[in-house]
Amino acid sequence: MNMTTGNRDAMLALGAEARKAAKALALAAAEQKNRALNAMAAAIRASAAHIAEENVRDISAAQSKDLKDSFLDRLTLTPSRIEAMAKGLEDIAALPDPVGEVMTHWTRPNGMVISRVRVPIGVIGIIYESRPNVTADAGALCLKSGNAAILRGGSDGFRTSAAITACLQQGLREVGLPETAIQMVPDSDRASVGLMLEGLGGTIDLIVPRGGKSLVARVQKDARVPVFSHLEGICHVYVDKAADLHMAEKIVLNAKMRRTGICGAAETILIDSAAPAFLKPIIRTLIDAGCAVRGDRAAQAEDSRVTPATEEDWSTEYLDAIVTLGVVDGVDGAIAHIARHGSQHTDSIVTADTATAEKFLREVDSAIVLHNASTQFADGGEFGFGAEIGIATGKLHARGPVGLEQLTTFKYQIRGAGQVRA
Amino acid sequence: MNMTTGNRDAMLALGAEARKAAKALALAAAEQKNRALNAMAAAIRASAAHIAEENVRDISAAQSKDLKDSFLDRLTLTPSRIEAMAKGLEDIAALPDPVGEVMTHWTRPNGMVISRVRVPIGVIGIIYESRPNVTADAGALCLKSGNAAILRGGSDGFRTSAAITACLQQGLREVGLPETAIQMVPDSDRASVGLMLEGLGGTIDLIVPRGGKSLVARVQKDARVPVFSHLEGICHVYVDKAADLHMAEKIVLNAKMRRTGICGAAETILIDSAAPAFLKPIIRTLIDAGCAVRGDRAAQAEDSRVTPATEEDWSTEYLDAIVTLGVVDGVDGAIAHIARHGSQHTDSIVTADTATAEKFLREVDSAIVLHNASTQFADGGEFGFGAEIGIATGKLHARGPVGLEQLTTFKYQIRGAGQVRA
Repeated sequence: MNMTTGNRDAMLALGAEARKAAKALALAAAEQKNRALNAMAAAIRASAAHIAEENVRDISAAQSKDLKDSFLDRLTLTPSRIEAMAKGLEDIAALPDPVGEVMTHWTRPNGMVISRVRVPIGVIGIIYESRPNVTADAGALCLKSGNAAILRGGSDGFRTSAAITACLQQGLREVGLPETAIQMVPDSDRASVGLMLEGLGGTIDLIVPRGGKSLVARVQKDARVPVFSHLEGICHVYVDKAADLHMAEKIVLNAKMRRTGICGAAETILIDSAAPAFLKPIIRTLIDAGCAVRGDRAAQAEDSRVTPATEEDWSTEYLDAIVTLGVVDGVDGAIAHIARHGSQHTDSIVTADTATAEKFLREVDSAIVLHNASTQFADGGEFGFGAEIGIATGKLHARGPVGLEQLTTFKYQIRGAGQVRA
Repeated sequence: MNMTTGNRDAMLALGAEARKAAKALALAAAEQKNRALNAMAAAIRASAAHIAEENVRDISAAQSKDLKDSFLDRLTLTPSRIEAMAKGLEDIAALPDPVGEVMTHWTRPNGMVISRVRVPIGVIGIIYESRPNVTADAGALCLKSGNAAILRGGSDGFRTSAAITACLQQGLREVGLPETAIQMVPDSDRASVGLMLEGLGGTIDLIVPRGGKSLVARVQKDARVPVFSHLEGICHVYVDKAADLHMAEKIVLNAKMRRTGICGAAETILIDSAAPAFLKPIIRTLIDAGCAVRGDRAAQAEDSRVTPATEEDWSTEYLDAIVTLGVVDGVDGAIAHIARHGSQHTDSIVTADTATAEKFLREVDSAIVLHNASTQFADGGEFGFGAEIGIATGKLHARGPVGLEQLTTFKYQIRGAGQVRA
């Protein structure tokens, strides 16, 4: 940390501005926020050429470094990706506003009516890697949920993010909302992240990291404010002896191979020891689809293409066309295996036996547990949340997909007629 | 921190035991937990004499120190306080079990049914001062909500708490639940608190401090795991020009004077500058009831017994028969004053004007906001929660009274029929 005093002061001032903006946003009408989002989309479309130019400059600078292709791909904005970003803002405008919703209310014997009403959290810090689209997504989700956003993107995407942020702020200005509702951390030195993780002088209420494991691990380790995140998704599919084999093959294949790089992709397939006949077809289905299978002895014995799984494999998030596969003793064995090796993210059972399924759904302590469905449904959109800023595996407040509702909190409003306490 | 390796290992082992017990508790039936609570109550009644003896030993040791009378009072268990503790356990047994409740559920277009189901948080650490009754209260609330409890009470009440914990564990044993579901930290050196605040090797999910400001401040400052707490309750009553004066006097008096030592007691009374006639009767009501009034110039001008309020007074939680009183410019002035000086705990408006009241309820960013009712309703029992472990002023997960529901989290259970993601 060799942040200069000037930078530190600038960061604290930015936090103070965000706190001020949050107060205005908390009271902004849905209609005004939606107009802002639509104006942002228009500004992004109008600035598409400029955003693309800035993106090219970012990419050129990044190419001189020794970066992975996947990194450069995420950094790159094509015209269709810019349009998708604008469309994403309009989609968020079309979602219902969570703020002000009366979540529940009841009347006390003395006549007081207690309501639990949804309100914004306040100021949310988003720390992300060089994925320019997160700038628009995260800014928009925070705005819609009535929160001010402090965005700190990866330095390799700085110019692109700055061009996008300018569009977001233009949208805010056009409808009379404070443009400090969405701010970008100006410098890209690492000390600004440290300050954000400390809460930026008490101005940040929540941090959401978006990026790879090392970023999330650092945020989880160092943050002194609440964090919504998941470090990894070691998701399991357990195929019970009472499963329909055809359904099991379909779910296993989808859970593992539909997209291998997302956190809801399955990394381990567990098969009931009472259904040895399931091994061969499930292994074949995976290998035929181009998936490398690492297995226990039983799996290896069924198919010579299965390589031995090490102890580490059972706790590995491959995010690739690789899977660990083995046999467990029934649903209890599966539950014990998941408790030991899982990451409390998403786990699924395939079975036609309802009692077995209910046991699994009850006893597996993960954010999302499924019966006869693919783990790849672990996604805010698939839940019907409309948009998500990530998946949380922590236990408090947000667990599972983090959408607009999860970016709010509540307060109690009590309406009385002069009641005093006895 | 001069904890020996032995103590550290013992603490970590205790955490691991709690984690194991939490798994069993999460699946325990309501009926079994309730039988345990009733057995605990019976054990406390049967051991009343022993508990009282241990309490006398604690008090004797404490009397040799220079402790406040209020401290000794909280440490002291009379026969009626022991009976109240047993009765409290039975009351918690009679409350509905929050675990397993389906909070909401919906069906996706593809036929999957998504349910949000209440589950326990896991392991809760309670750090409290020398108030032996917290041992029973906190242990019982954690048990009923399916959580394992690690109790760390003040050293001056160690013997009493140990005697109570033995009764709680006896109740657990009698119904076949692990007695490690409620554990007491064995030694009373401060390093054990430090270990708990770090999360005890990843075994503690949540810390709840119970005690005075210095304890809560330390926990808030050093905890690396989530904390449900409030540092102070600087609660306001704003009397609007449209208030019924009689109602205002009644609410002000109750909010300040019913009990002055609780966090929901009012510390500041704000009066609308458009209603100067309210000042004199409200000040008189307070002073007649034995309350010292510190006021701004307007208040001082109305009554010579009003002493000048310093800048610090407006942000002081007296917890005593002292109040700060002054004039603000209407509801906007009140909202601004509360934003500046309040503690986001509990604030009330007295007015007959519904629009003004709604503005206050909407704009004051506190856990609890009231219209025409006393701030002393800031209490889980008064909310109908049955029992509470405290009030939280943090924004995430629990805000306001922390009862059984707030000691739970949720997971998503998805029931499908073979759905895979497109």
